[in-house]
Amino acid sequence: MITSTANPAIKAIRKLRERKERQATGLFYCEGLRIVGDAFDHKAEFECVLAAPELLQSEFGKSLLQKAVTLNVPIHELSAAVFTWLSQKDHPQGIAAVCKQTWTGLGALDLNPGDLVTALDAVADPGNLGTIMRTLDGVGGKGIILLDQSTDPFDPGAMRASMGSLFNLQISRTSLAEFVGWKKQTGVKVIGTSGEASEDYHGYPYPDPMVLLMGSERQGLSPEHFRLCDGVVSIPMVGSADSLNLAVATAVVLYEVYNQRRTDGSVRGGTR
Amino acid sequence: MITSTANPAIKAIRKLRERKERQATGLFYCEGLRIVGDAFDHKAEFECVLAAPELLQSEFGKSLLQKAVTLNVPIHELSAAVFTWLSQKDHPQGIAAVCKQTWTGLGALDLNPGDLVTALDAVADPGNLGTIMRTLDGVGGKGIILLDQSTDPFDPGAMRASMGSLFNLQISRTSLAEFVGWKKQTGVKVIGTSGEASEDYHGYPYPDPMVLLMGSERQGLSPEHFRLCDGVVSIPMVGSADSLNLAVATAVVLYEVYNQRRTDGSVRGGTR
Repeated sequence: MITSTANPAIKAIRKLRERKERQATGLFYCEGLRIVGDAFDHKAEFECVLAAPELLQSEFGKSLLQKAVTLNVPIHELSAAVFTWLSQKDHPQGIAAVCKQTWTGLGALDLNPGDLVTALDAVADPGNLGTIMRTLDGVGGKGIILLDQSTDPFDPGAMRASMGSLFNLQISRTSLAEFVGWKKQTGVKVIGTSGEASEDYHGYPYPDPMVLLMGSERQGLSPEHFRLCDGVVSIPMVGSADSLNLAVATAVVLYEVYNQRRTDGSVRGGTR
Repeated sequence: MITSTANPAIKAIRKLRERKERQATGLFYCEGLRIVGDAFDHKAEFECVLAAPELLQSEFGKSLLQKAVTLNVPIHELSAAVFTWLSQKDHPQGIAAVCKQTWTGLGALDLNPGDLVTALDAVADPGNLGTIMRTLDGVGGKGIILLDQSTDPFDPGAMRASMGSLFNLQISRTSLAEFVGWKKQTGVKVIGTSGEASEDYHGYPYPDPMVLLMGSERQGLSPEHFRLCDGVVSIPMVGSADSLNLAVATAVVLYEVYNQRRTDGSVRGGTR
């Protein structure tokens, strides 16, 4: 059992809070019963599982350790104090994991009818990114494309907000130039949103498959992003607010697309 | 000019970060050109305006100081260092204010056709609360009712996420018992949401006026909240996610209500 925070392996894992460390290693840290369970369900590539027996009470948690044993994933036992030092939660559940980041090359993101993808330009807030992944997963989305300066989907804040949906989506990152080339080559339709657009998002005839392109929190879509859109819609507003939160705006359009598709029968729309 | 962070007035203002201090004084701190401007636009009751001349560059900012002079609001000049110490922003704009909290008694929240209110039970995250206020304002909502253990709308995180929409909404806080009494007395209809409900939120015949009742992030609606609802709707989901972020779920239903109302002409729905 590891009982000291001076342990080099533990120090290295804590460093995964930093983006540059995640980039250098290609790894990420995830924590809690729910997310570690999702990582197993989605066959994430595990480096190791971390468990604090004093904290890990639930039967489900113990079943996750059993899975790790079955899959020959190394398990490090930690004292409650060391686990808490590593943890980013107020009430750590005593289980965490280090996994390899999985990225999908844009060329491998093959869109077919029924598929829905969100592309984000320069999304800055990890919580927004995670919330968008959670919503996209909720409407059966296939993947997310992160353009240029977007924040890291493996950031702890994004992981937390995604509630495990991260594992259920294909994640690509790309430059604008590569994205434009991919669009030309595949012919996929891209719909943007803007407060300036004259088309109402509600009732708009969304293409299928499609990519919903959203701009950054501060700037919205830049002129060069506008130019590549096949259509641009706006979400009407009254009151004093002049824009919506990015994750909210994305959700409002995603649910409109989803409602259209389930109404015309092209996706299943059961309540879960 | 105040050049020391030991200044008692400045120390007292910084304490407004804490909920108990806000409750004891009935005041709140707001910061930035946008929010202070909104506070003036909505005739907030100002205790004082804080300005750091070295940081306050914009003409708009200077016009806000002029408004303070006109309205006889005391202005405290701060050094850049003191302002930055007080500030909660990475790049402080050099203007802030202390205002009186404005609450609307539930009895004064008079609902007429076209009115839309959101009631939140035990919302825990100030960012979620602020985002919900921003969206509610965006669909022309009238007010927000905070039940029992909900977080504080005057929390800095809620203020920030609300983007000034806080000033455009009537804000009530109440107990469940008082809420039930108010509903009986006024006859207003309450619609709740739950993953368990059989009614699809999309196409549901929402009453007008109505209160949309949302449960907490962790627990959703409790049985006693269910019982007071005139209808309960669910937002369908596919994928691995088993719920949506609270602010997202609220937005998805609010936009459905708004779309129904602007389609039947009962509210204006222009793009701004």
